[in-house]
Amino acid sequence: MPRDSTSYVLYYSPGAASMAVHWMLIELGVSFESQLIDIDAGRQHDPAYLRLNPAGRVPTLMVDGTPRHESVALLILLAERHPEAALAPEPGSVDRAAWLEMMVYLANTILPAMRDWFYAGSDGDPAGAEAVRALACRRLDAAWDKLDAHLGESHDYLIGDKLSTADFMAVMLMRWTRNMPRPALGWPNLARYIRQLRARPSFTELNAREGLTEWRNEEA
Amino acid sequence: MPRDSTSYVLYYSPGAASMAVHWMLIELGVSFESQLIDIDAGRQHDPAYLRLNPAGRVPTLMVDGTPRHESVALLILLAERHPEAALAPEPGSVDRAAWLEMMVYLANTILPAMRDWFYAGSDGDPAGAEAVRALACRRLDAAWDKLDAHLGESHDYLIGDKLSTADFMAVMLMRWTRNMPRPALGWPNLARYIRQLRARPSFTELNAREGLTEWRNEEA
Repeated sequence: MPRDSTSYVLYYSPGAASMAVHWMLIELGVSFESQLIDIDAGRQHDPAYLRLNPAGRVPTLMVDGTPRHESVALLILLAERHPEAALAPEPGSVDRAAWLEMMVYLANTILPAMRDWFYAGSDGDPAGAEAVRALACRRLDAAWDKLDAHLGESHDYLIGDKLSTADFMAVMLMRWTRNMPRPALGWPNLARYIRQLRARPSFTELNAREGLTEWRNEEA
Repeated sequence: MPRDSTSYVLYYSPGAASMAVHWMLIELGVSFESQLIDIDAGRQHDPAYLRLNPAGRVPTLMVDGTPRHESVALLILLAERHPEAALAPEPGSVDRAAWLEMMVYLANTILPAMRDWFYAGSDGDPAGAEAVRALACRRLDAAWDKLDAHLGESHDYLIGDKLSTADFMAVMLMRWTRNMPRPALGWPNLARYIRQLRARPSFTELNAREGLTEWRNEEA
């Protein structure tokens, strides 16, 4: 579809799971509106927002008037709607299966462990939170080991040596480790990867729009 | 690509996460080989298998000679490679975003909670397993509530009132609840959905090929 007919509204909270979608929208250069839903202030539980997102989470992306959810699904959807940006390997191409596998891995392994780390005490019984968070840490360490080895010393991107939706998602998840016991910047290949991705003008613009000052290259 | 040039080898264990991919291959009617990797006997840790799947999990699907992983990614890949079967809404169609969202939801919410339920004591410290499993149960109950409401009294399939990859994944996950405190068959709309999906000849064939006798319509 032509870019100028596109209508997107992104509901986001600074630094939250909406950040990867926000980054991709900026990188695509498409027109979109953004609406701040301040999670720290509990705005995700406002009745008006719950009508768009019954789970009370971000992101919500209005796509042609319909609210859509799940950051990984939104990244895939945006790649399909804007094939000219080539932010995913084309169907049938040699990297397609590896890209799908990486997107699902980020969604079903790293993202849930992050949820456990940050929300164990509110999603479940606070008395059990320490055990849940310990398992989350163990799984995240294993995941960063895996991605560090996957990148090795020579790869600048997760898939096919070019920028894809997987990088927006991965760098967002790595950002969330900045105050965890083992930040992703402690892995040598991840550190190189993070610095190279953070150097993109779209990442600088993203941080400016979300009002974020931590975890930028200047401060690393 | 034409069906007759397709080369697939599925490494599976009966009733495991390979089951959804196995079901889809049967439903597609494509030719494929299958290789039993008996998880109960620990065969997923054999060096020869670890070369195909370093995580030691099933499924692995050899696609044109390359090992691919992650059941949700494989279902999406197979839908792309066999568009004539129409097991996913086409890119650009009205149901596409809802389908992607459902596939990611199954991957990042239900599947990890299942992993917690079954593997908390081996993935993490056994002393913390009870807390991890309690949170998993809570999340699964919420997920079944959500899917039961999503189906309502009138929908036979999760997306667009027709069979899609989401149904293979969802029914496999629901099957795993059969010995849990609250089996999915206890939700009225899920029970109707399960019985209708289990009535497909491909499900009967799947159970026969995997040597499974539990959780079939005859016994429900």
